[in-house]
Order: sequence, then structure tokens, then C-alpha cells
Amino acid sequence: MTERGLLIVLSGPSGVGKGTVRKAIFEDDAVDFRYSISATTRKPRPGEENGKDYFFVSREEFEDKIQAGDMLEYAEYVGNYYGTPRSFIEETLASGRDVFLEIDVQGALQVKAKMPEGVYIFLTPPDIKNLRQRLIGRGTDSAEVIEKRVAAARDELKKMINYNYAVENDVVAHAVDRIKAIITAERLRVSRVLEQIAEQ
Amino acid sequence: MTERGLLIVLSGPSGVGKGTVRKAIFEDDAVDFRYSISATTRKPRPGEENGKDYFFVSREEFEDKIQAGDMLEYAEYVGNYYGTPRSFIEETLASGRDVFLEIDVQGALQVKAKMPEGVYIFLTPPDIKNLRQRLIGRGTDSAEVIEKRVAAARDELKKMINYNYAVENDVVAHAVDRIKAIITAERLRVSRVLEQIAEQ
Repeated sequence: MTERGLLIVLSGPSGVGKGTVRKAIFEDDAVDFRYSISATTRKPRPGEENGKDYFFVSREEFEDKIQAGDMLEYAEYVGNYYGTPRSFIEETLASGRDVFLEIDVQGALQVKAKMPEGVYIFLTPPDIKNLRQRLIGRGTDSAEVIEKRVAAARDELKKMINYNYAVENDVVAHAVDRIKAIITAERLRVSRVLEQIAEQ
Repeated sequence: MTERGLLIVLSGPSGVGKGTVRKAIFEDDAVDFRYSISATTRKPRPGEENGKDYFFVSREEFEDKIQAGDMLEYAEYVGNYYGTPRSFIEETLASGRDVFLEIDVQGALQVKAKMPEGVYIFLTPPDIKNLRQRLIGRGTDSAEVIEKRVAAARDELKKMINYNYAVENDVVAHAVDRIKAIITAERLRVSRVLEQIAEQ
């Protein structure tokens, strides 16, 4: 019997830098995760590619997938849908490969309810002021949108208690090292090691 | 209020290489653990120093300490007492420093019963045959003692389920990296991070 893969979920407030950290993790050739690409109805930002950063779909297409039961999680956030195809995750884990999911807080909690055995990592901003500066610096959002996002981030920080780990995104390389340490440690948990021994 | 230190317990079968791994961890200058030196009534092996590898004491002295309630754990193993002064651990953790304990399986389980919040790491031999070879190679034990230890190790492996993590001691440097990853990850557990936030 093939040993089941590990589900690793990276989440955190909007604008905290989840995408940057995720990209840095995947730049390491030693990393052999399958990355779960989310579907979204939001418009691509400059430089984002369809099928790489997200599957960019219409509202109609997204709602059809929900109806078909093909979303492990989905959420509407700042007026757009974000979601994760369920079949992809299940098949990849069953084949023995690890899956890395980068999703917003609403999505992570939905996945956790269905797959509590995953490793849930909450990426935190160094502080809320820093988050606001980051959004201003990005220059893609109006002041009103930024304030809405900062308020949402405060609410989301309260949800940290539902996660297994909290990683501060002070310096991307440090955040990456911490996440790699978490994954190494999780693979060494006695509950998982005993499963492997039982399957030999 | 000072944030309480982390108790890290490295344990595993006799002869698995706990001492070698522990020494390699402490060779890293970035490591700031307080090492808890055990007391024992066994005779020093060549190269071992009193007050560094162990506190080598007489049976009488050891039993006096037990009576005084100054042992967090103690055990009799292959005819000798091994134990850990309780006050040292408590004071160091309260001062905010991490404590690293390297002890046998019996001792680790006693400590866990009293301090379940610690991080319990089980060091495993690559296999039992390898353990026997290691003991033979050390050249300090008779064949009878070696067989007794291998049998004891088999019983101890069954106790892995009481630990949080299992680390294979295939290559010392790899075992050290895995243990460091575990400690990094444990410091990032949401339960500990939330404690820190609450104390700010």
C-alpha cells in the first residue's frame, strides 16, 4: 500500500505575502510537492498567468463547478470566488505525493473541516501597520479597498487558533526556512512514522 | 512575564547514539539550550567526565536525592541508577531558557507524565542488527550484556507511541538536522505563539 501524501496548507491574511513565500518554496529543487492551483473569478494582476498562478474563470464556470461538487473549498472574498478542485487533492495524496495548498483563511478553514489531518500554517504579517504599508506599496488598490483589507486581516488574525503553526513573514527567506522545518518535523511525527511501519 | 522555555527530551534505546547526537547538536554555536546533566551511579566510560557527561555519584548519594524529592525522573537500568534533578529543569524553564534532556526511555516516560507540554523525540536505530553491531564495535560490553541490551531495545521501540517525534539515527548530521527542524517547528506551534501574544 502506498503511503499517503501530506497535505500542507499555507494561509493567512490578504496581502501578507502568501504567494511570494509559496513561490520561494517552489524555487528549491529539492521540493517535490504538487502545487494545488486555485480557481478564481478575480482578474489577473500584471504578471500573473492562467494555469500557473490561478485558473482564471468566469463566475458562471465557477458556479457550475460548485454545483458539480468539484470544490474542496470555495469562498467569495472582496467580490470574487476562490476555490480548490477536490478531486485533484484526493488523487494526489492517494498516489503518495504531498500537496501544497496556498489559500485564504476562509478556504483553509473549510479544508480543515474536511481534512483535519493536514498541516495548517498561518502566515502572519510582522504587524498590521506593515500590512497596510505593503498594500499601499503594491499600488494596485484604492485607499478604501486597502482599509477594507486591513480590517479583514484583523478579523482573520483571530482565526489563528484554528491552525497548527504560525509563521511570521518578516523576511521571505526566513519564513521559507520555518515552513520547511515544519514540514520536516511533521513527517517525523510518531503517528505518521508508525503508519509507515505498519504498512511495511 | 517571561516566556517559559521549551523542554526538549531526546530519548531512545540504549546504544542508539543519543550521546553522539546530543554532542553534535551542542557543537552548533547558535544553539542556546541549557543541557540537563543526569546523575548516575554507573562507572564512567573512558573519556567521560564528571559534571560534563554525567554527575557520577554513589548509590547512597543517589538514594538520598530520591528521598529528598529532588529527582524529576529516575530509573534503575542494567544495575545502575540514572536520574534528573527536578529543581534545575523547573528553574531554567521559568527563566525563559530551553532545556535539553537526553535520557533513557524509562526516564523520558516519567518526565512526560509530569511535564506533558515538553517535546518528546525518540531516536531510532536504522535497524536492530545495526544496534547490535554498534554495541559490538564499541567494545566495552560482553556478549551477554550486548544481547540483554538488544532485547531491551526491542521492548523500548514499542514505547515509541508515547513520543511526539521519531528520528532515525542513520547519519548523525542528518539526525541533528531533523531534531533542529522539530525544535524550530515546535516554537511555531500556534498554542505557543498565542501564549506569547497574550503575554505582550
